[in-house]
Amino acid sequence: MRCATRRGTSRSVSTTSTSSRRVHVVPAKVSRERHALGRGVGADIRLRRERGRIEWFAENTGFMWERARSLGQCLCSLRQIQKGLVGIAKGGTSAKGFGFGKMKYAESRRSQHAYKRKVLRGVIAVREQRCGLQQELGGILDDDAGARRLRRAHLDLKNNLSSQSSPVVLFGGSYGGMLAAWFRLKYPHVAIGALASSAPILQFDGLCSPYSFYDIVTRDFKSESENCYEVIKRSWKEMDDAINKGVGIRELKRAFNICNYEEMDVVPSLVENALVYAAMTDYPTPSNFLKPLPAHPVQKMCEAIDHPKTGNDTFSRLYGAVNIYYNYSGNVDCFALHDDDPHDTLYGWDWQSCSELLLAVGGVSNSSMFPPSPYNFTDQVADCQESNEGIPPKPHWITTEFGGFDIKRTLKRFGSNIIFFNGLRDPWSGGGVLESLSESLIAIAAHKGAHHVDLRFSTNEDPKWLTEIREKEVQIIKNWLTEYYRDSA
Amino acid sequence: MRCATRRGTSRSVSTTSTSSRRVHVVPAKVSRERHALGRGVGADIRLRRERGRIEWFAENTGFMWERARSLGQCLCSLRQIQKGLVGIAKGGTSAKGFGFGKMKYAESRRSQHAYKRKVLRGVIAVREQRCGLQQELGGILDDDAGARRLRRAHLDLKNNLSSQSSPVVLFGGSYGGMLAAWFRLKYPHVAIGALASSAPILQFDGLCSPYSFYDIVTRDFKSESENCYEVIKRSWKEMDDAINKGVGIRELKRAFNICNYEEMDVVPSLVENALVYAAMTDYPTPSNFLKPLPAHPVQKMCEAIDHPKTGNDTFSRLYGAVNIYYNYSGNVDCFALHDDDPHDTLYGWDWQSCSELLLAVGGVSNSSMFPPSPYNFTDQVADCQESNEGIPPKPHWITTEFGGFDIKRTLKRFGSNIIFFNGLRDPWSGGGVLESLSESLIAIAAHKGAHHVDLRFSTNEDPKWLTEIREKEVQIIKNWLTEYYRDSA
Repeated sequence: MRCATRRGTSRSVSTTSTSSRRVHVVPAKVSRERHALGRGVGADIRLRRERGRIEWFAENTGFMWERARSLGQCLCSLRQIQKGLVGIAKGGTSAKGFGFGKMKYAESRRSQHAYKRKVLRGVIAVREQRCGLQQELGGILDDDAGARRLRRAHLDLKNNLSSQSSPVVLFGGSYGGMLAAWFRLKYPHVAIGALASSAPILQFDGLCSPYSFYDIVTRDFKSESENCYEVIKRSWKEMDDAINKGVGIRELKRAFNICNYEEMDVVPSLVENALVYAAMTDYPTPSNFLKPLPAHPVQKMCEAIDHPKTGNDTFSRLYGAVNIYYNYSGNVDCFALHDDDPHDTLYGWDWQSCSELLLAVGGVSNSSMFPPSPYNFTDQVADCQESNEGIPPKPHWITTEFGGFDIKRTLKRFGSNIIFFNGLRDPWSGGGVLESLSESLIAIAAHKGAHHVDLRFSTNEDPKWLTEIREKEVQIIKNWLTEYYRDSA
Repeated sequence: MRCATRRGTSRSVSTTSTSSRRVHVVPAKVSRERHALGRGVGADIRLRRERGRIEWFAENTGFMWERARSLGQCLCSLRQIQKGLVGIAKGGTSAKGFGFGKMKYAESRRSQHAYKRKVLRGVIAVREQRCGLQQELGGILDDDAGARRLRRAHLDLKNNLSSQSSPVVLFGGSYGGMLAAWFRLKYPHVAIGALASSAPILQFDGLCSPYSFYDIVTRDFKSESENCYEVIKRSWKEMDDAINKGVGIRELKRAFNICNYEEMDVVPSLVENALVYAAMTDYPTPSNFLKPLPAHPVQKMCEAIDHPKTGNDTFSRLYGAVNIYYNYSGNVDCFALHDDDPHDTLYGWDWQSCSELLLAVGGVSNSSMFPPSPYNFTDQVADCQESNEGIPPKPHWITTEFGGFDIKRTLKRFGSNIIFFNGLRDPWSGGGVLESLSESLIAIAAHKGAHHVDLRFSTNEDPKWLTEIREKEVQIIKNWLTEYYRDSA
């Protein structure tokens, strides 16, 4: 275990008063706390972001749908159960043929208490028509009413399958991966196993370094070329200098093709987001998770920096890279921060990651290609309280409820049937379980992998290592099922 | 597994409309629902029962205190965490030298909603002065605020021990045994193991027969003598006949030495309680758990029935038996139902067992020595709702949250380090885990044992089987500790 063997609760927090960045699992957004890099998302945008699309998550979890039949199962998705997904219109059907229901954030946002109570009460209704069945699985972690819903959903599932002993396997990526792992640990009578992909369950309460996220993004770009790293590292000061000069701001906006209606100092945030998200989604094949992207986007962005098509200056090089992230389709007229959240998930995530899911992350080390920014726990808590309308976060809730300290010792002889997949190019892998905890709590780490790459639909261009990892995962899950049926005999 | 291998959720409920008895883990009380046997506890008594004594539980968990030092540990009690034990005066010190704090039921009884929210939020503060340390362990099962308290208490414990890696082992009997087992399953990062003694975790939701409780009481008495069984079996009709005659009631009260202020029809309930509690506490040595009792009280009561010292009629024989239960000390002037709850726990237990902890129990089969009474789930739910001021029970909450169906399959490859002890003379053993679920989820069943007899203080008169069982338990726990320290090395 790289960092989870730490004992006790002491934290690697800086004593400086500099605010730390807030980082988002997926999708991320601009780090509002770093004022030098501008404030990107205002209240007006928040108000518009009250709806998310479950289809988006499903479209990026192809592995599960592809393999359900080969496993002889109809599998349900627990993926990306977000806070506040309480109201569900079950009749909704997407154009993609999956037939998922629409999801809505709770409408009681104005009632702080009621809203708070609803956190983590999420329920997702999944109608998996491929198996010809209507299935529903509610995933709830800490709430009594939720637990009853879960049980009811569980019974519905069993009844719909006309078999009360059908095994349930959970698949989750990112936050959904954390939920899948915790769900298996808390409700072994509901789910026989979980594939927890890119689940940073150790990114809490000082368990792992709060600097790992930006360090890994840096490592990704540095691995492509030293020059790429150097250009990016020096660009921030040049951007700040330009912002500090009146004429410079206009130049900067033009250099980066920023939409006219955007704030003047938005450029550094846009650049940072492009770099971070490219690292997270540095997939080996073309993808369209957060944005339409080519295969190996980090490599492509570094190539644009190293071999610019237009000018040789820093901004021209950087623009070439940013253009790959924001405009790979070639259809985008200008860039805007709002485009960083095309799937409208940030409103919920902002709340969640500042209440019960306070990820201890966002520090930037001196060797990073980003401007150094010490992590400060106290500031993170204060910023979150301000952001969440005065309701304080619960920084120790996750480790209280789900553990994390001494995880290897705790789970060596407890629990079973969880796969922890991590792609080591994924900045979130710094908080992942990277070593197996026991014979059936299995860590799989892919050196060339990004954020839950294993869960994506397969393509003919998939590299061998990815195909092999998926096969390994399928084999492990098949073994769980074999064991289950043998135990049931 | 005797009954836990049942699958699905179908219940062995009768379709008749006869109300079932409500049975209490410990202490029990008169079965109010069976009107033929009278109504014993009225609202006036409930109002007086708002305080319980944790010392009483501690005094009956000697095993833990005796063995703490030999295990090289300071162990904390999670035993008998009752609903509503929210307010705790930590400074309270008992005359017994343990120094436990006083416990109080929540004072918000009138606020149904608030009260409901507090159910199972219990916190017990234990100050274990024998180890020279002040330790506090909060045990909370379903509540977020509670979980934070738990974590805080956990940290306090670790800090007080000046060692953040000190292992915690849970000991619990009866309801406390259920809590100990569930706690270990939900919070493996807090407790490394649990001794769950006489914990009927399968007495829910139709998992085990709702008739087993009275069947086992019957078996206990029948095992002493067939005549004892026959006398008791025919006594109920004679009591009913006497109650139905005006003169008979006075005769009956006199025959059973009932206090003048008691209701006229209290006798059958008093007799039933004496028989049930004697079976539960049928210990092999003199005890003073629910009442001062001789060793083998069931045997003594049957001897009184088989060889009466006064008259030969049914009532004289039965009185001899009842007198052993209610007046073994010889100091009791007359018998009263209120004396069945000397430790003031029923008020809390009544609420608990009719809300989240709805034990599916209380049916009386035709072969029982008690008057037959079919179990009816619907009636039990309705009776509970009426009893709990209109708040409906949650009959599926326990199996939703903690499982139970297919427990052997579910836990065969999940979880570890729980001992399930059951004494087979204990009527609650019908809902216990009687077969080991895995190598480290170990069932120990004692044919001659009663309700958590293993947890009692040792005496020089302890039979060999009891000494051996305690040694076995200590050895298992020592192995957990050895493993824990080896894993920590």
